[in-house]
Amino acid sequence: MIRVGLLGHGVVGSGVAEILRKNGDVLWARTGQRLELASICDLRDFSHLEYASLFTKDALAMARDKSIDVFVECMGGVEPARSFVLEAVRQGKHVVTSNKALVVAAGEEIAALAQEKGVRFLYEASVGGGIPVVTPIRQCLAANRLDRIAGILNGTTNYILTRMKDGGVSFDAALQEAQRLGYAESDPSADVQGDDARRKICILAHIAFGSPLDDGHIFTEGISALTREDMLYARELGRSVKLLAVAELVSGGWRALVAPAMLPQGHPLGGVDDVFNAVLVHGDMVDDVLFYGRGAGALPTASAMVGDVLDIALHPGDAPLCPPRGELAALPSLGGQTRLFTRVLRAPAETADRVLAQIPGSRLVRLDGPAFQGEFGLITEEGEEAALRKAIDELGLPHGAVLRYMSV
Amino acid sequence: MIRVGLLGHGVVGSGVAEILRKNGDVLWARTGQRLELASICDLRDFSHLEYASLFTKDALAMARDKSIDVFVECMGGVEPARSFVLEAVRQGKHVVTSNKALVVAAGEEIAALAQEKGVRFLYEASVGGGIPVVTPIRQCLAANRLDRIAGILNGTTNYILTRMKDGGVSFDAALQEAQRLGYAESDPSADVQGDDARRKICILAHIAFGSPLDDGHIFTEGISALTREDMLYARELGRSVKLLAVAELVSGGWRALVAPAMLPQGHPLGGVDDVFNAVLVHGDMVDDVLFYGRGAGALPTASAMVGDVLDIALHPGDAPLCPPRGELAALPSLGGQTRLFTRVLRAPAETADRVLAQIPGSRLVRLDGPAFQGEFGLITEEGEEAALRKAIDELGLPHGAVLRYMSV
Repeated sequence: MIRVGLLGHGVVGSGVAEILRKNGDVLWARTGQRLELASICDLRDFSHLEYASLFTKDALAMARDKSIDVFVECMGGVEPARSFVLEAVRQGKHVVTSNKALVVAAGEEIAALAQEKGVRFLYEASVGGGIPVVTPIRQCLAANRLDRIAGILNGTTNYILTRMKDGGVSFDAALQEAQRLGYAESDPSADVQGDDARRKICILAHIAFGSPLDDGHIFTEGISALTREDMLYARELGRSVKLLAVAELVSGGWRALVAPAMLPQGHPLGGVDDVFNAVLVHGDMVDDVLFYGRGAGALPTASAMVGDVLDIALHPGDAPLCPPRGELAALPSLGGQTRLFTRVLRAPAETADRVLAQIPGSRLVRLDGPAFQGEFGLITEEGEEAALRKAIDELGLPHGAVLRYMSV
Repeated sequence: MIRVGLLGHGVVGSGVAEILRKNGDVLWARTGQRLELASICDLRDFSHLEYASLFTKDALAMARDKSIDVFVECMGGVEPARSFVLEAVRQGKHVVTSNKALVVAAGEEIAALAQEKGVRFLYEASVGGGIPVVTPIRQCLAANRLDRIAGILNGTTNYILTRMKDGGVSFDAALQEAQRLGYAESDPSADVQGDDARRKICILAHIAFGSPLDDGHIFTEGISALTREDMLYARELGRSVKLLAVAELVSGGWRALVAPAMLPQGHPLGGVDDVFNAVLVHGDMVDDVLFYGRGAGALPTASAMVGDVLDIALHPGDAPLCPPRGELAALPSLGGQTRLFTRVLRAPAETADRVLAQIPGSRLVRLDGPAFQGEFGLITEEGEEAALRKAIDELGLPHGAVLRYMSV
């Protein structure tokens, strides 16, 4: 029997409780062991619940409860979650979390202590909600040198972009709609500014490349500067706009970034719409593999967490997720090759020639209609991203959001 | 150290040898153990290879070689592969295979012996080539009651259908092209008649539902009756034609079938083109999850096999893939609800009324152009599939291939 202590009974935590209670027979058939919900810590009042007797308000006592085998953290935030988790590990408990902020801020500290104590620290649910990505990357694709991950890792922004594309609405209107539907929080900044996606790509790179859990150097741009007009250029160009998180292992180190991109038709991520997430992984042997599904939500996320508990039940002595490796330098996010798109605004007639002279090889796109008077879309040739962004700024012309113009 | 014996050095076997030789450092970092290619059995002459000294022609001796830990079967076919594998298991070796015919014909026998001997029998590569599906379904999604799997499981037929759609060519021309490119074998019947996809959906159902490895009752229809005209109806209807393998867990048992289908825009499998495979899994907690990638090819398939070897290195004492469960009845493949599409051919003018009278609720579609003179497309209302197919036959009219007309 595996006894689970649950820290936090909010959206995801209550999902974990529901799965453990409803699908106990399935879990038993898969593991040959009972996974029992032993204790739940939450400061709020849940005395109306059928399982009210399991609740406690003392997280430290739960972290020290000798009868608990797995500590499932659904509290969110870095502190005090970190302290409770570290105490649980110190007491010899395995830990499962969906908390990406915690994993990025303290994952290496927790993993090191877990290794010392011979327990496991798993966080499948921290990326892609219910979609299996961490375990497949770590285990099923382990025969590969993995060198590239690209993902749509944030469901809120993907929903907003889908509404802007299909509904022709503005960013603000789409955001409000997402908030009404519960897809965006009242303070949506972590989603729309790209911070959530940055933490997730940092975690995926760690699993795939062994890079450090440090997202401080990752260039991050959100979607709030995107307009309906950008969507119309994308449609004209046969493309779709996505907030893309990318990490690459390259000679000399690794780099990552989060930025809006225009994806061509036929790109495996181009058709991923609404709140769905998808992760595209490239390995030297397997080529591209894609994982797709619901990247958030109580039950999908809880499904991944209970999958981790089951992994622990089957393999309590497994090696850490990411084995130690040599130094892997964090390279500048904008050091790679790409093409860029932007709208050049309020451009006098002679501007086009100057743009083509200053950014050689560019292509200009003009759309009909009053909204596009006196502006054009600029698509650069492929070049070093930092240099291209500088060249656009040095035009000294007002311009819209800058999007990566990706090939398949 | 884990010592690997490789049975068969053909397309996939040589891929396994290449990965073990080239990516040994990656595997070592992931497992903390050396995975060593110890012996290769093949009757052909490979004396020109750098690792020619590893070859033997005696498969039984390799199966009995006490220094070998994992027996990797890349021989294909049921016999004599089955006998060699059973002998290897009897001698206490773990077994990894990509051989779907072997898994369906003898998988339960091998798994039972493996359990008795305390060794593992893994076959991730038998479905979806390099795409991780078996392990994610078994482990990562194990918190779910999985009740539905739909997949594009055969790359050859998917390539042919893509060429028929995009290139406007006939089935025969597309097949010849696939053969020229090495995507189809000189005898393509197992692919184009759907037998390959049937074995794979049978294996996936076994992993997901615990159904027996018995594909005898699975209704199987291939793609050789499909025409360019079917593709044009699909385009007019905003749909794409795919060879779909489906398995469902329903009240009273499970059922599966392999048949061509028209998928609407927005269906997660609708955009899976060329030789790619995809598997869509539905669980009660996670909703839909999709796995996508190269479903065949030497290195992708070998990547999955080496992933299994690594799984064994990490978890030599793991439980069997599919735990024993109670009887699960095999229900008739055509007992489910669906809509159907077919072309009604050489139909006199008064036929339409008769069709609508005999198959109430149907919708007729007419395309312009000389190729469509005197015919129409028939889309039935939703009903029991067997009854709908019978009703189409009872029209007594010549008709084209019957395709399932799926909703999202």
